[in-house]
Amino acid sequence: MERVAVIGASMTQFGQREDEWILDLLAEAGLECLEDAGVDATDVEHLYVSNMASGEFEGQTGVMNALAQDIDAVPAYTQRIDQTSSSGGAGIYAAWQSVASGASEMTLLVGGEKMTHKTTGESTDVIASLTHPVEYKTGVTLPSFAGLTARHYLERFDAPRESLAKVAVKNHENGVDNPHAQFRKEIDEETALESPIVADPLRLYDFCPITDGSAALMLCPESVAQEYTDDYALITGIDGATDTHVVHEREDPTVMGGVVESGKGAYEMSGLGPDDIDVAELHDMFTILEFLQMEGLGFAEQGEAWKLVAEGYTETDGELPINTSGGLKSKGHPLGASGVAQGVEIYEQLVGEAGPRQVEAETGLCCNVGGFGNCVITTIMEAAR
Amino acid sequence: MERVAVIGASMTQFGQREDEWILDLLAEAGLECLEDAGVDATDVEHLYVSNMASGEFEGQTGVMNALAQDIDAVPAYTQRIDQTSSSGGAGIYAAWQSVASGASEMTLLVGGEKMTHKTTGESTDVIASLTHPVEYKTGVTLPSFAGLTARHYLERFDAPRESLAKVAVKNHENGVDNPHAQFRKEIDEETALESPIVADPLRLYDFCPITDGSAALMLCPESVAQEYTDDYALITGIDGATDTHVVHEREDPTVMGGVVESGKGAYEMSGLGPDDIDVAELHDMFTILEFLQMEGLGFAEQGEAWKLVAEGYTETDGELPINTSGGLKSKGHPLGASGVAQGVEIYEQLVGEAGPRQVEAETGLCCNVGGFGNCVITTIMEAAR
Repeated sequence: MERVAVIGASMTQFGQREDEWILDLLAEAGLECLEDAGVDATDVEHLYVSNMASGEFEGQTGVMNALAQDIDAVPAYTQRIDQTSSSGGAGIYAAWQSVASGASEMTLLVGGEKMTHKTTGESTDVIASLTHPVEYKTGVTLPSFAGLTARHYLERFDAPRESLAKVAVKNHENGVDNPHAQFRKEIDEETALESPIVADPLRLYDFCPITDGSAALMLCPESVAQEYTDDYALITGIDGATDTHVVHEREDPTVMGGVVESGKGAYEMSGLGPDDIDVAELHDMFTILEFLQMEGLGFAEQGEAWKLVAEGYTETDGELPINTSGGLKSKGHPLGASGVAQGVEIYEQLVGEAGPRQVEAETGLCCNVGGFGNCVITTIMEAAR
Repeated sequence: MERVAVIGASMTQFGQREDEWILDLLAEAGLECLEDAGVDATDVEHLYVSNMASGEFEGQTGVMNALAQDIDAVPAYTQRIDQTSSSGGAGIYAAWQSVASGASEMTLLVGGEKMTHKTTGESTDVIASLTHPVEYKTGVTLPSFAGLTARHYLERFDAPRESLAKVAVKNHENGVDNPHAQFRKEIDEETALESPIVADPLRLYDFCPITDGSAALMLCPESVAQEYTDDYALITGIDGATDTHVVHEREDPTVMGGVVESGKGAYEMSGLGPDDIDVAELHDMFTILEFLQMEGLGFAEQGEAWKLVAEGYTETDGELPINTSGGLKSKGHPLGASGVAQGVEIYEQLVGEAGPRQVEAETGLCCNVGGFGNCVITTIMEAAR
């Protein structure tokens, strides 16, 4: 079977996009990705849209079909992919499958979400409904899961409260260099530590914001990629896995089974291991999640990730830069777009287009977490150069 | 590349399922399909859920992750597939891709929708939002498109009003033999012709009902299928295609571009043509659509399908039985389930499990229409015996 290549990427400005709605955002990223890849819209065979909830957020469904017409890709086959907050990663997996199966020789994946026109309460209602009713109907929302998990982690592994703040500080620092990030401002540890409590011990700066935005990737077989460019990336490992949907039934709250299983699958497929990864984008919806993914993916032993972060191991000039894009924390988290944007960052790092964020990398990994680890997708890319 | 087989199928009772909600319906079809295929839940690698709008209809998202736990398939990878009213067909395509790409050796596809707890107006609001706002916000809903198209077809091709009623009469007759159908009652032409006007010239009996229900299929590589059974079906052709999202921009309202293009792709892949098809399930959401699909798929010349229906060509004992299941018209149309249920009927016909509906068939085709032909998926299956 031929290997699957990524030949183009784009993302819109993330943040509060007052004048645009979902269809504008999707078209903006889609058109820009076509241009970046040098592909005519008429050559797109499959057009996949990662989007969790345009119906709930805007009363508009069928957005993938509208997009096909908006970017002039009709009669390309379209599909909407929903895997809650990991819809973007699921989109990469679906697009990979479309190419690897031979169904499509050119697949454009566009992820997007429009959320900021809703109040935080309204958005939380939509997002909370992705968990099991036995939990969300008794008030256990995702942020509260994060708070409980963080408290457990800090106590069990004797980690200082500051260790979580360091994740926020690092990712905000990285975001300054990302022109598309929602927040481009450095914060210091004190600011993070003194921000308002949201779900004790987590405070405002432990959480990603609510965001509007869109991102896109162009996938095709390697032989087709070579007709377009010499600088492309290859998806050499990809897998996804669920954990129990009812979060409180998990044996160890610090182990995300979906991270472990999807990571295992992606490593096995690529023939690489954690030590071979040069740069990674992890799903830092909450700061504590960066620790759990580092450990689940084998970048750190259980209970040790916080030490690596404190040592600077995951900074841009460290051994394994994590979230060079700024992560969800400072770049923003438009649900369906986030996993695609992770792929955009890794692609740009591998083809040398990351500008001031550029690190040396021949391999990269992204981990996109749906819900509170309810389903996770891990993708490994390698530079083709 | 190995061929993709279908080794099991199930569907729940379609109709008004007052005591169940979406998760119950999905689990019911999923568990029954596991049993029918003789597959352990722990052997399912990918679990795909075709569902358009559980968030809008029930305020519950993440249903694919809940299902994984409900049927004990964790850590199987999950994804929700939305292609509006053709979500089921899109699910077959996604499941096919998961197996054909080598990503999964056992994919369970479950389609479902829970709708009857909403008023017709509320359901129409959700469904209408799949079309372009320039149309639905001015009041042009899917039924009104159907009325306009039917009027044009009847006048242009000199077809009598009775020709549409004959589709309803035939599909109601077929539905009597389907134990899972929502309506198991024959109707006569007079009843159809005198039923209340909905969108002139179309009347109540030209429309499918609003339905709760779920259906499932089990897909795997052919070599794996042979470990389970000798009686399986093969998906030998499958393709999907969009048409303009803005319906009124199409050149000829009687030609559904998505039907034509997806049919062309499926025929080419299978090496079969319209004359080779023994039985077909078409998307008769509105009676007029059965004509348009017969013509778009090459079963009839443009403007001639109504004559074949009038001659009995598409009845169970005719040359090409269409909608032996009863079709959406009498079986019901729970959006995400409908395309999967089409696949269930063709599978059962090919493996000889269609009971009183059984026809002689070595090949079968299903055509699942999203919106008003905004995106269409055509699937061709062949018996392996």
